[in-house]
Amino acid sequence: MDIKNVVVAGGGVLGSQIAYQSAYKGFNVTIWLRSEGSIGRCQPKLDRLHAVYLQTLEAAKTNPTAWANGFADERPDAAGIDQLKERAEQAYKSLKLTTSYEEAFSDADLVIEAIAEDPKQKIDLYTRMQEYLPERTIIATNSSTMLPSAFASYTGRPQKYLALHFANEIWRFNTAEVMGHAGTEQKYYDQVVEFARAIGMVPLCLHKEQPGYILNSMLVPFLTAAEALWANDVADPQTIDTTWTIATGAPAGPFRILDIVGLTTAYNICVMDPRAKDPDSTQAKIVQRLKQKIDAGELGVNAGKGFYDYSKK
Amino acid sequence: MDIKNVVVAGGGVLGSQIAYQSAYKGFNVTIWLRSEGSIGRCQPKLDRLHAVYLQTLEAAKTNPTAWANGFADERPDAAGIDQLKERAEQAYKSLKLTTSYEEAFSDADLVIEAIAEDPKQKIDLYTRMQEYLPERTIIATNSSTMLPSAFASYTGRPQKYLALHFANEIWRFNTAEVMGHAGTEQKYYDQVVEFARAIGMVPLCLHKEQPGYILNSMLVPFLTAAEALWANDVADPQTIDTTWTIATGAPAGPFRILDIVGLTTAYNICVMDPRAKDPDSTQAKIVQRLKQKIDAGELGVNAGKGFYDYSKK
Repeated sequence: MDIKNVVVAGGGVLGSQIAYQSAYKGFNVTIWLRSEGSIGRCQPKLDRLHAVYLQTLEAAKTNPTAWANGFADERPDAAGIDQLKERAEQAYKSLKLTTSYEEAFSDADLVIEAIAEDPKQKIDLYTRMQEYLPERTIIATNSSTMLPSAFASYTGRPQKYLALHFANEIWRFNTAEVMGHAGTEQKYYDQVVEFARAIGMVPLCLHKEQPGYILNSMLVPFLTAAEALWANDVADPQTIDTTWTIATGAPAGPFRILDIVGLTTAYNICVMDPRAKDPDSTQAKIVQRLKQKIDAGELGVNAGKGFYDYSKK
Repeated sequence: MDIKNVVVAGGGVLGSQIAYQSAYKGFNVTIWLRSEGSIGRCQPKLDRLHAVYLQTLEAAKTNPTAWANGFADERPDAAGIDQLKERAEQAYKSLKLTTSYEEAFSDADLVIEAIAEDPKQKIDLYTRMQEYLPERTIIATNSSTMLPSAFASYTGRPQKYLALHFANEIWRFNTAEVMGHAGTEQKYYDQVVEFARAIGMVPLCLHKEQPGYILNSMLVPFLTAAEALWANDVADPQTIDTTWTIATGAPAGPFRILDIVGLTTAYNICVMDPRAKDPDSTQAKIVQRLKQKIDAGELGVNAGKGFYDYSKK
């Protein structure tokens, strides 16, 4: 693989995880950030990630369930885990943060764009980075909600542009959905698949553009169906979750998942559904019920309460 | 609880399981069957179930994962499991099979109707059994696809009529969805909930009628979304399953579930979707792709092949 120098543009939740994990797997990683303020917000995220990796690795010495599949192909013995911790130390020290376009982009093999879901900001960045990028650079976007075809023409290299979409807690939920647009060349697509594997991800190949990729294309209708049962007063969230977990053996039902996703995200998805405009629709009822919970501060796991109470943990 | 004498009408896959499990939990159970031929088809099912209970209980002595939650609240020690096996023996011996309406229905506390999903046959049965049923008898339908409101008026006791819906392999997937119609009286609903719990089920209470109950209201849109990704050539079934299992921790993705459900059932559900009439629709593509697999004999787990190959097991 020709990819060695990886630039992650954006230091948010996913950007910092992608950067850390890529460095942990031995790549030269630079995080490009828009401003000194962004650096100030990114560094604590990296500090926290570093602590999580070290603690989780240590815990995995004695507890197999602590092990995360992104750490390595197999859980090694304690000595092997100590080597992985050493690798995490080196990764942490090696990460470079910069606001300089030149420093970040002038020797990049792969840019992973993980900035805000704002088309204008993405177009700005793609346009600006072109001034510095070598011809060889592949650009991948981590956008969850936008399609690569919408931005390909702004990258100056549509054939080397595609989407590489990560899940939160990348070291544990180690999927990378790889999705080109119609103009992506197969050989660059394949290189990104290889890179994804090299950083400990399971590459999930999409053969064509699909809004929501694979996961959200299933998760959204599934969660919406569960929300509909609740908003129409057919059954309680706990009953609905119990039904799903007993019937499918899954560890969490839809309302546990909604608590993890966050009710604000669920609300935003549901508001965008055109059917929600009809006030008598099930979608409008879901929007209303989610809004009640959001107004009450019941936003999910991170807020300590959502459909379930997490405050006693 | 006033329920002691339980009549299961119908000796199909679910009817025989409901009867066996109810007897195993100490109820007096009679299976009513339409003909001597039905008795001949039901008895081997009971024989097989009996063997499954005994083998699974024996295996659970040493293997905790063999344990099924419908057997008892908690997995006992080996001596306790021997007692459960003895209970299974008694259940097996106690089951009465009859084609006589009088014998079956004249002293029933609860009738569980589990005959074919044919409205005419159900109406016939409800009409005929009224001649024999005591006034106290509660009638529950195990129908998966029809609503109790469609039949309440034919039972002669709409306030004592509701749905009690089981999952296949009742001893393991021990859910019982309880769903009344608008005229079901709460006290009879509550008695059926209590009965469900008494036979080792987790009662899942629906507050109103819902086609598909809770589980299928979620499962159908979820599976359809997965089928759409496949039929539109976005991704392969294996990739889609991997995405779901890594992201949600579930033991099986949608195509493993489809193999268990059976592709013929999936096909029948999709054909009934009004959108499938448009040949350019995703639904029509799903129907076409499922039909190809069905024509090739790839019907799912029971056929040895579906989306996965089970022949080497």
